[in-house]
Amino acid sequence: MIAGRKHRVVTFGELLMRLSPPDYNCFVQAQQAGIFYGGTEANVAVALACMGCETSHVTALPDDFTGDAARGHLNRYGVDTSFVIRNTAPLGIYFLEQGIVHRPGRIVYNRDHSAFSAIVPEVFDWEQILAGTSWFHWTGITPAISPGAAAALKQALKEARNRGITVSTDPVYRSNLWKYDTDPAATLREMVALSSVFMGGPAEINMIFGTSFEDEHFTDAAKFLMEECPGIKSVTQKTRSSVNASCHKIAARCWDGKELYVTEAVEITPVVDRIGTGDAFAAGLIYGMLHDNIKGALEFANATSVLKHTVPGDACLLSAGAITAVIRSRFSGRIIR
Amino acid sequence: MIAGRKHRVVTFGELLMRLSPPDYNCFVQAQQAGIFYGGTEANVAVALACMGCETSHVTALPDDFTGDAARGHLNRYGVDTSFVIRNTAPLGIYFLEQGIVHRPGRIVYNRDHSAFSAIVPEVFDWEQILAGTSWFHWTGITPAISPGAAAALKQALKEARNRGITVSTDPVYRSNLWKYDTDPAATLREMVALSSVFMGGPAEINMIFGTSFEDEHFTDAAKFLMEECPGIKSVTQKTRSSVNASCHKIAARCWDGKELYVTEAVEITPVVDRIGTGDAFAAGLIYGMLHDNIKGALEFANATSVLKHTVPGDACLLSAGAITAVIRSRFSGRIIR
Amino acid sequence: MIAGRKHRVVTFGELLMRLSPPDYNCFVQAQQAGIFYGGTEANVAVALACMGCETSHVTALPDDFTGDAARGHLNRYGVDTSFVIRNTAPLGIYFLEQGIVHRPGRIVYNRDHSAFSAIVPEVFDWEQILAGTSWFHWTGITPAISPGAAAALKQALKEARNRGITVSTDPVYRSNLWKYDTDPAATLREMVALSSVFMGGPAEINMIFGTSFEDEHFTDAAKFLMEECPGIKSVTQKTRSSVNASCHKIAARCWDGKELYVTEAVEITPVVDRIGTGDAFAAGLIYGMLHDNIKGALEFANATSVLKHTVPGDACLLSAGAITAVIRSRFSGRIIR
Amino acid sequence: MIAGRKHRVVTFGELLMRLSPPDYNCFVQAQQAGIFYGGTEANVAVALACMGCETSHVTALPDDFTGDAARGHLNRYGVDTSFVIRNTAPLGIYFLEQGIVHRPGRIVYNRDHSAFSAIVPEVFDWEQILAGTSWFHWTGITPAISPGAAAALKQALKEARNRGITVSTDPVYRSNLWKYDTDPAATLREMVALSSVFMGGPAEINMIFGTSFEDEHFTDAAKFLMEECPGIKSVTQKTRSSVNASCHKIAARCWDGKELYVTEAVEITPVVDRIGTGDAFAAGLIYGMLHDNIKGALEFANATSVLKHTVPGDACLLSAGAITAVIRSRFSGRIIR
Amino acid sequence: MIAGRKHRVVTFGELLMRLSPPDYNCFVQAQQAGIFYGGTEANVAVALACMGCETSHVTALPDDFTGDAARGHLNRYGVDTSFVIRNTAPLGIYFLEQGIVHRPGRIVYNRDHSAFSAIVPEVFDWEQILAGTSWFHWTGITPAISPGAAAALKQALKEARNRGITVSTDPVYRSNLWKYDTDPAATLREMVALSSVFMGGPAEINMIFGTSFEDEHFTDAAKFLMEECPGIKSVTQKTRSSVNASCHKIAARCWDGKELYVTEAVEITPVVDRIGTGDAFAAGLIYGMLHDNIKGALEFANATSVLKHTVPGDACLLSAGAITAVIRSRFSGRIIR
Amino acid sequence: MIAGRKHRVVTFGELLMRLSPPDYNCFVQAQQAGIFYGGTEANVAVALACMGCETSHVTALPDDFTGDAARGHLNRYGVDTSFVIRNTAPLGIYFLEQGIVHRPGRIVYNRDHSAFSAIVPEVFDWEQILAGTSWFHWTGITPAISPGAAAALKQALKEARNRGITVSTDPVYRSNLWKYDTDPAATLREMVALSSVFMGGPAEINMIFGTSFEDEHFTDAAKFLMEECPGIKSVTQKTRSSVNASCHKIAARCWDGKELYVTEAVEITPVVDRIGTGDAFAAGLIYGMLHDNIKGALEFANATSVLKHTVPGDACLLSAGAITAVIRSRFSGRIIR
Repeated sequence: MIAGRKHRVVTFGELLMRLSPPDYNCFVQAQQAGIFYGGTEANVAVALACMGCETSHVTALPDDFTGDAARGHLNRYGVDTSFVIRNTAPLGIYFLEQGIVHRPGRIVYNRDHSAFSAIVPEVFDWEQILAGTSWFHWTGITPAISPGAAAALKQALKEARNRGITVSTDPVYRSNLWKYDTDPAATLREMVALSSVFMGGPAEINMIFGTSFEDEHFTDAAKFLMEECPGIKSVTQKTRSSVNASCHKIAARCWDGKELYVTEAVEITPVVDRIGTGDAFAAGLIYGMLHDNIKGALEFANATSVLKHTVPGDACLLSAGAITAVIRSRFSGRIIR
Repeated sequence: MIAGRKHRVVTFGELLMRLSPPDYNCFVQAQQAGIFYGGTEANVAVALACMGCETSHVTALPDDFTGDAARGHLNRYGVDTSFVIRNTAPLGIYFLEQGIVHRPGRIVYNRDHSAFSAIVPEVFDWEQILAGTSWFHWTGITPAISPGAAAALKQALKEARNRGITVSTDPVYRSNLWKYDTDPAATLREMVALSSVFMGGPAEINMIFGTSFEDEHFTDAAKFLMEECPGIKSVTQKTRSSVNASCHKIAARCWDGKELYVTEAVEITPVVDRIGTGDAFAAGLIYGMLHDNIKGALEFANATSVLKHTVPGDACLLSAGAITAVIRSRFSGRIIR
Repeated sequence: MIAGRKHRVVTFGELLMRLSPPDYNCFVQAQQAGIFYGGTEANVAVALACMGCETSHVTALPDDFTGDAARGHLNRYGVDTSFVIRNTAPLGIYFLEQGIVHRPGRIVYNRDHSAFSAIVPEVFDWEQILAGTSWFHWTGITPAISPGAAAALKQALKEARNRGITVSTDPVYRSNLWKYDTDPAATLREMVALSSVFMGGPAEINMIFGTSFEDEHFTDAAKFLMEECPGIKSVTQKTRSSVNASCHKIAARCWDGKELYVTEAVEITPVVDRIGTGDAFAAGLIYGMLHDNIKGALEFANATSVLKHTVPGDACLLSAGAITAVIRSRFSGRIIR
Repeated sequence: MIAGRKHRVVTFGELLMRLSPPDYNCFVQAQQAGIFYGGTEANVAVALACMGCETSHVTALPDDFTGDAARGHLNRYGVDTSFVIRNTAPLGIYFLEQGIVHRPGRIVYNRDHSAFSAIVPEVFDWEQILAGTSWFHWTGITPAISPGAAAALKQALKEARNRGITVSTDPVYRSNLWKYDTDPAATLREMVALSSVFMGGPAEINMIFGTSFEDEHFTDAAKFLMEECPGIKSVTQKTRSSVNASCHKIAARCWDGKELYVTEAVEITPVVDRIGTGDAFAAGLIYGMLHDNIKGALEFANATSVLKHTVPGDACLLSAGAITAVIRSRFSGRIIR
Repeated sequence: MIAGRKHRVVTFGELLMRLSPPDYNCFVQAQQAGIFYGGTEANVAVALACMGCETSHVTALPDDFTGDAARGHLNRYGVDTSFVIRNTAPLGIYFLEQGIVHRPGRIVYNRDHSAFSAIVPEVFDWEQILAGTSWFHWTGITPAISPGAAAALKQALKEARNRGITVSTDPVYRSNLWKYDTDPAATLREMVALSSVFMGGPAEINMIFGTSFEDEHFTDAAKFLMEECPGIKSVTQKTRSSVNASCHKIAARCWDGKELYVTEAVEITPVVDRIGTGDAFAAGLIYGMLHDNIKGALEFANATSVLKHTVPGDACLLSAGAITAVIRSRFSGRIIR
Repeated sequence: MIAGRKHRVVTFGELLMRLSPPDYNCFVQAQQAGIFYGGTEANVAVALACMGCETSHVTALPDDFTGDAARGHLNRYGVDTSFVIRNTAPLGIYFLEQGIVHRPGRIVYNRDHSAFSAIVPEVFDWEQILAGTSWFHWTGITPAISPGAAAALKQALKEARNRGITVSTDPVYRSNLWKYDTDPAATLREMVALSSVFMGGPAEINMIFGTSFEDEHFTDAAKFLMEECPGIKSVTQKTRSSVNASCHKIAARCWDGKELYVTEAVEITPVVDRIGTGDAFAAGLIYGMLHDNIKGALEFANATSVLKHTVPGDACLLSAGAITAVIRSRFSGRIIR
């Protein structure tokens, strides 16, 4: 990994407050909660900022002390918030009861009428926002939230294309989020076509394109996708095999149009916090692709995701140097004095 | 105060989750929050249950772990929850940044689309709910929340009248809660007319009846109210004079149609938690009126409110015996071994 | 598992306060302790109430704020406490230093002169308590505590038999608890004879009947027991094989007079809280037998016990639906959004 | 105050575990408790050790991890525990619900069958314990606890007299502690006669000698006492006037047989922890009398007591230098950098 | 107070880690500490950023995770850290034992060999740092720390003068900080001469200029200063009168060359955190002078300082709007919903 | 293991404050830290005191409240601190970010100018300190800290030799600690020659003697050492094989000049706190050698080290009885009631 010049990465999406009881308490027995802030795209921004990138996260927050606190979270880790807008709708919230061993984690959302869901596309001046930007990252959560969010994202993608900005996507489809009248697959399809780095595998491709690739036919699915969307230059996927809530195995694979790259699987026991491990992967991949070749980027992405499982909260907070050192130590976890 | 037989008191209204940072932290600097549950009518039910009454609180909670936890709060202090309904809308929330000295407390609400606001009147079988009940208590918060909440309350009031149940009201008018198209004053007027114990003073009477009594003309206002609403048998008001967020003085006055009763003012320094001090007053008054004459009841109500300022959370948690002992000790605060 | 109508289950036994330092602190270094409440029979009641059963726990608590708090624990999770009596003796206490890996957990008791040990049989009106009850559960802890406790239990068992109530027992023998002059084996024998669901295996049968079945001759022991006590209709046992304090394997076996049922073993790593895992098994078995056949009940009991290892405190707090979902997911621990 | 050579002070009495919920939580709502250790004589030892004296506390603790932790508390602040005996009875406990403003603090004890109550006089070798000792301090709590405790104390007092050791007493009479068959007044009378420094006033003298001095006749009462018990050389009393649980005023008076000394009253608002403020006074007086004249000692004692109101836990933890600095600053509370 | 355009304010000085035990624990009894970050100039930057100004703080931090965390503190509240340098010396630390009532707060420093003390002037490019800046603020702490710090500050002051930037100073003299061989008064004199807004009074003027103005001759002292340093355009001072550690009275006075302005005194009881109340005053004054006339600025500064006494940590975290609202409410502390 | 008479063990070295965020928080996200005290030699003293030995730790602490608190730590666990000197330099500190799974723990030190580094040999009267002592323990950390520390240690070693005291050493070489101008190997060589119990293996021998034994040639290295330093009577080494930060395997080997002893390896998952596990080994070995033969001592040392991995903080806090019980239970971790 070569430390290069600073790249500016822009992300766009909802930032939620997370409330989770400490010490694996069930929610019904808890009398206090940790306050965290997270959102799939914001987590990518935070992780990239901690790695050393210049990042800006675009979102909408309420114009009250919860919005101030959420913005403070982004700033604290070095994410620019100049383009965050404020309105009178409330902050989206999720309650997380952490899982452990055989007891699954459980999430309750309160985000249907959030500040982010209330946005209209006009509030964002993408020309200004994307000036000087190298990379734009979006996920399938944003267009699911509201027509306004989907429309704003589409404008961002067009502006990014016009400017030749690299666009990456984690086009995750979460069915219970799509509550307005639209065709999710069509919406995502259109947006994927405007992107070049696809983070997903057969399941995502099947959902978006109505295909039925099996999980082991990753390369076939990737090739299909690249034919359908010629803008896509690489297909990368983190794969997870979980024994239970406390024991996961993480690996990654990538098809770059020419070659298949696969990392070794790494087992994480015990898992400290699995929220945002996919976002950490995305951040690692973006950082890696900005500073290394695809093989190095894949390894870096996988290590970032592995390490995020050990970091409380929604985002990986390690520097690029720290992640690289872990890779070099072959994940030994040896204390650093 | 004579310990009598158990009376059943029913309350109806929204139960919210309260999240407040510890140790007077500003919200922007907080990383954890205490989880509390409160709502003006529920607080009355909890306080009465702790005093020793049989109580049942009627509300709507989400059918998820946040709803389970909220119900657990009521049960813990002995409030019956058999008539709580569950739906798929989220739990109303309020964030409280505690004030201290000259820094005011601040509240941010997230309750517009809550489980309680989503109720339709049909879900409550008031005949069954009010069977065997001596007292029903409502406040001006409930009809403000949604047309469904107002309609359900109206049905409850009618059923209570049919059964000869004593109805008390704290007809507080909170302007920023009334978001649907209606005439708040007219709505409250109609409901007050169905009640017999009115907790409020000139300000509330002015708002509801369009009068302009000054604060010192409490008796005149009370007389006017009793003429307008012959069902009202007493008008009782807690008065607060606050030096700052940490120093309040509390007193109470009551016109029972014949005589004016006034308590001494009690200064509370430092205030631990001012939320729910009015609800504690209401609970104290109800308990007092069920077990004592109006003079004793007023004193008991005032003491309950004073003591609530020292109890963390939304409701007074003291037994009737403990409150009576404080009155007898003349608020000395002497340790009990 | 078919969700059926509500069954009323009554349990009887001591409820203790548990004080345990957080974060695996040794007691000598701790300056704070979590406050929990537990007792083997009360844990069964709490777990059943969380599953959805109607339950009532019968016990004695001090008439002070520690007793109020202990009762609040039961109420919070929906257990009826109408038949809890209050006296002037103190609450039984146990201090728990949580074990981890090779460091064993350690318990110090302070219960010899507790409120429960001070009971006399006359204070309980079992006719009233057991009215409308489907199931009564007792354990070998209760008769060990004091002659009064043993006598009260005997009366309960007789009343239960008269009413045809199903009686289950976890006849655990804890030698250091039996401090009064009696023959523990004879006492337990008499009580087991009044029960129909026996939760235990060769060790318990050997202790009570003076036999010497080896652990692998579970069926023989069960057959012997059923001959000795024809009222016993099933013998069920949770088996534990622990690698160390953080790694246990749990399985269950049952002889119902006709067939031997055995579940798969489930390994739990890391164990969060092993206290009450046997009580969780009992609760699961009772719930299962009330709603399913013996095979389903055994599986449900085993899963409940497995999951309790992940829940802080003394009782399982999961709903029947949540437990069933874990069984269906084959213990995958996958997050539920 | 002149820093002199080290004096050895021996104290004798029960050491209890204190459990109190944080942040003025009511016990019924608390899920955690601070663990403290205190006892009126042990608090004197701890405070004196922090001031710079050599001290040894004699008591009985259980031979388990609660006893280890209690001993660790004494050691931590420099108190010698070589003469602490260990037995199998449990540690005495008290639960403290902190009071604030008008809500009184409340204490629930669990000490009737404690390790200390189980002592027999033979376990203490007072000759060895009191070797090289300048001062022995006892209080009226110890003889109240059990016949064994009273007998052991009597032996200590006799040995102290034989050795010419100064003996001070805070002969507090707590009626609900005396549960065995004896005449408390006679017992205390005999012990007071073996002492020379009496910390108490008219109320204590009346109780012990059956007199009826009014509170304002302090000097008369002191003179009477000195006539009755010629060994008593000074009578010193801390007087408290409390507005409520958060606002106390503290002053002190002393009759040394010749002159009456009175300090100014100091108001403490808000009180942080009033437990042990009398013990702090005793420690301050002992330290003062060992290092200064009676006037200086009285001032030092009063300041120590005032400062203890601001220290969480049962004992004053300030050095003699820090206390003297506060006196010099005239209680200004100005920050020290 | 008129909300105007954004002004850029630059501050320069050491940022320390503060470690203070919670809940008024004495340090000797504490097992945990809150982690805070503060420094007199950084506190000004944080407060101004929270008010709404653009600010940049210039300092040196260690190139390790403590430095990352300290920088994160600044970023979190919106302070730019682009000009923070990193080196290998450790972070300065101060341990704070919070005082309460008559127990004084106590501070232990560990800063003699800190990252900031190790700076050499060459590491700061003041031309670049001060570009586009309206205001530069320094205090008497910085030149005391090391010759390098003093030299760097001098360069900054010269560059500020060249650019016509308003320079404010709080020329506090803390004698135990000046450990290198220099003449503190001469050093400060030279720097004050390069400033225009002087925050201090007779004591500071006397120290720096060797005069002996009495405290009540504020105007005379201010006039003298303006004659000595014609660049000084206003002399403003916060005055504090403290009853004890929990009760302070704050007022402010200002001489602007023409008129004397004095605010009313405001009593703060109880004080939550007195650290940084002078810095809050400075921030309020700067904000006020950037947006209002001197009278309004003085009031705003005083209110900011008053409110800081209620905010945990080293800096005021309130927005300009919130402070203005408190002034308008006449410090009523009334809750804001 | 035979409980024998009390032996006095003296240790000498720096005691640092450890600050580590709870719950595996990264330092950049933490707002509170646990306060611990540790130092490699002090940890040995604390562990031995908990086991039941008489111990005295010799060090230098600042004469302020941080020094008081550090001394309190030693006293609390029974370590004598009569020979601790106090000076005006600050307490050494280390910040620990706990590692977990693949995320390595990280330490930042602030100890270069600490109270201990400032010592001069004259302040310690080794004749008095070592009177009545059976064992003296030192490590390679002490001579690395400063010339004064090295000189003081040399004097102690000479006095110990004169008195025939057994001297053990853990001659760890930490290169980044040796900041003054000296030859570390020569310094250590000289000191090892004055010792008789060597805790280390090929790596340490190679470093000190410039040899190049491979790790598997432990016996050869030990033999070489014994030839070089005829005073060395045994060479003992703890070996660690770590899978990652949460999974370590611990074993031990010993050459006593005649025979090689090797323990079984014990796997610890999850590791709670790996700091001080080597010191626990040393303490176990010393205790074992004082009470048992070398084989028993090695097993005891290994078990102590294994158990330390489960104890939060820097030192093992278990009694010798508890450790022996774990060995007897074959590390089963079974709960002790």
